[in-house]
Amino acid sequence: MSSPARHDSQGSRAIPGERFIISHIRSRLPPAPASLIVAAGDDAAVAVPERGALQVLTTDALVEGVHFDRRFSSLADVGYKAIAVNVSDVAAMGGTSSLVLLSLMLPDGTSIQEIDVLLDGVLEMARIAKVTVAGGNITRSPGALIVDVTATGHVRPRRILRRDGGRPGDALFVTGSIGGASAGLEWLTEAFRCGFPLQPEDGGLATCVQRHRRPEPRLRIGAVLGRARVASACMDLSDGLADAVRQIAEASGTGARIDAAALPIDAAAHKWFSASGHDPVGAALSGGDDYELLFTLPRKTARRLRSAEAAARGVPLTHIGELTTEPELVVVRDGQSEPLPSGFTHF
Amino acid sequence: MSSPARHDSQGSRAIPGERFIISHIRSRLPPAPASLIVAAGDDAAVAVPERGALQVLTTDALVEGVHFDRRFSSLADVGYKAIAVNVSDVAAMGGTSSLVLLSLMLPDGTSIQEIDVLLDGVLEMARIAKVTVAGGNITRSPGALIVDVTATGHVRPRRILRRDGGRPGDALFVTGSIGGASAGLEWLTEAFRCGFPLQPEDGGLATCVQRHRRPEPRLRIGAVLGRARVASACMDLSDGLADAVRQIAEASGTGARIDAAALPIDAAAHKWFSASGHDPVGAALSGGDDYELLFTLPRKTARRLRSAEAAARGVPLTHIGELTTEPELVVVRDGQSEPLPSGFTHF
Repeated sequence: MSSPARHDSQGSRAIPGERFIISHIRSRLPPAPASLIVAAGDDAAVAVPERGALQVLTTDALVEGVHFDRRFSSLADVGYKAIAVNVSDVAAMGGTSSLVLLSLMLPDGTSIQEIDVLLDGVLEMARIAKVTVAGGNITRSPGALIVDVTATGHVRPRRILRRDGGRPGDALFVTGSIGGASAGLEWLTEAFRCGFPLQPEDGGLATCVQRHRRPEPRLRIGAVLGRARVASACMDLSDGLADAVRQIAEASGTGARIDAAALPIDAAAHKWFSASGHDPVGAALSGGDDYELLFTLPRKTARRLRSAEAAARGVPLTHIGELTTEPELVVVRDGQSEPLPSGFTHF
Repeated sequence: MSSPARHDSQGSRAIPGERFIISHIRSRLPPAPASLIVAAGDDAAVAVPERGALQVLTTDALVEGVHFDRRFSSLADVGYKAIAVNVSDVAAMGGTSSLVLLSLMLPDGTSIQEIDVLLDGVLEMARIAKVTVAGGNITRSPGALIVDVTATGHVRPRRILRRDGGRPGDALFVTGSIGGASAGLEWLTEAFRCGFPLQPEDGGLATCVQRHRRPEPRLRIGAVLGRARVASACMDLSDGLADAVRQIAEASGTGARIDAAALPIDAAAHKWFSASGHDPVGAALSGGDDYELLFTLPRKTARRLRSAEAAARGVPLTHIGELTTEPELVVVRDGQSEPLPSGFTHF
């Protein structure tokens, strides 16, 4: 944890309490691998880069009141998800994460027990993703709890999956299912409004809620899509499928046509959206937080899809449409074309 | 800028406004060097690591209301400082920064003009430190403006400057002068309280205020201290000299003796502390934000100090004390020993 606090604009400064928190966090980290020459506790971490590989770097923050609600997610869920969304970005480049830095902004009165629960989630996802918490920073927050994570990883030079590699005629594929995380969040919001317990009895909805709380990054599939040079472009679905289709098409200079009937909408989410008066196709296309991967498959590499399917270990890879020469972004439903839903406002 | 916004716990999501901000930021970045294979705009950045070097990684956030006050610092100052404090941490490891990731958490109503001013400062320090803004993230903040920066850099394996390399008998040196940044902040606080303009007429105090707003990281000296294997331990003074002495001594398993008369206290800061009834030695030892380097010099490498002095280009390197076998941390003043001031509370 480098220079964890500094001069405070009110005149108060670095602290015993803070040193205690840092040494407590360090005591909870598993032994650092030999590749980490200097771990948490100095000005910076120092690590051996992967030989012959390129560095992959990404950062994403989870902000209380924006990305999570402490009534709906435990701090362990928040820590888990903060790591998951970052290693998902590395996987979406065809890379493998190796180190993360954890920047915690803690509201006054945060207890060591709360930090411990947050760390439980961080360390659980770190174990799953095989990443080392190499360092970070803690500071006071005047308001929200913020967990900002930077992940670094590596990728072989010719295995990088960019957004701009798609070509007209490439098939569009998505991993797993969509709509689950946003249905889960809507369910939580509704249950809270009605004063119900925040754990669904319905198994399908419970899975949706779990996807909102603890998304499963497609680490293995991402690495294989790059390794086998299956995909020509790839990105993760942090902001929803419609957004991902738009970004890949724009970066690649193509249009896109999505087949509504082919969309792998989560069954419980479909039922929930219908019952609450939403169009399930529109809701699933625009709902974020699923962390599936969208990728493009050129005809000439179609045979290599099998290696990705083997790596997917039962996670479906679904053909949902094509990149097109025409610049339009359309959803085809019952033979009719309609425009792809647009992005959604965050600010 | 990777997956810049995601599902909002209130149900609102990723945005046109946000995409506009990201593309605006990208348009302001200088052309990426060839070593940056994928720059801002994909899931993650991809870069060529320095051959034969180790990776250095650090992260530090500037939080409005904790680390800066918008009445006292312009957003350009905030952007400048956010880069400076991170490249300072890399220099304090003997390393050279190469890439930074910029994680911006923006309060509602932040204008594109404000982001531009912030970027002015970011890009100015990035130019000075010769670092590339490789990517990052933007998200909404429910309260404070937060600039969280991750810096990566490189260091040759045998040139790493850790905190724990000091030995009893090693001389303690500090670069430049101390106390200036905290005197500058105190002056600003006092001037604001009295309703005066926030720019000192006195040149010395103006320099102190500038040090608070735009600290100068000791990049060249840090790299040379590692390269010439001059120093046995090193860290930067983000949390003040007393804190740095304590941390190096604790990590090295030694005590330390500081000579109060030798401390290079900034002249204007000394006068300001005296005039406002503080002990200048205590205030300069405990004041943070100076971003000078504290390093230890073993007797056997003392001759190599000249190479560091040449690299310092007029920045004084001052001998302020020694690491000791006895575990105590003391300041010797007028022949009397007194305990080193303790750390300061941030939480």
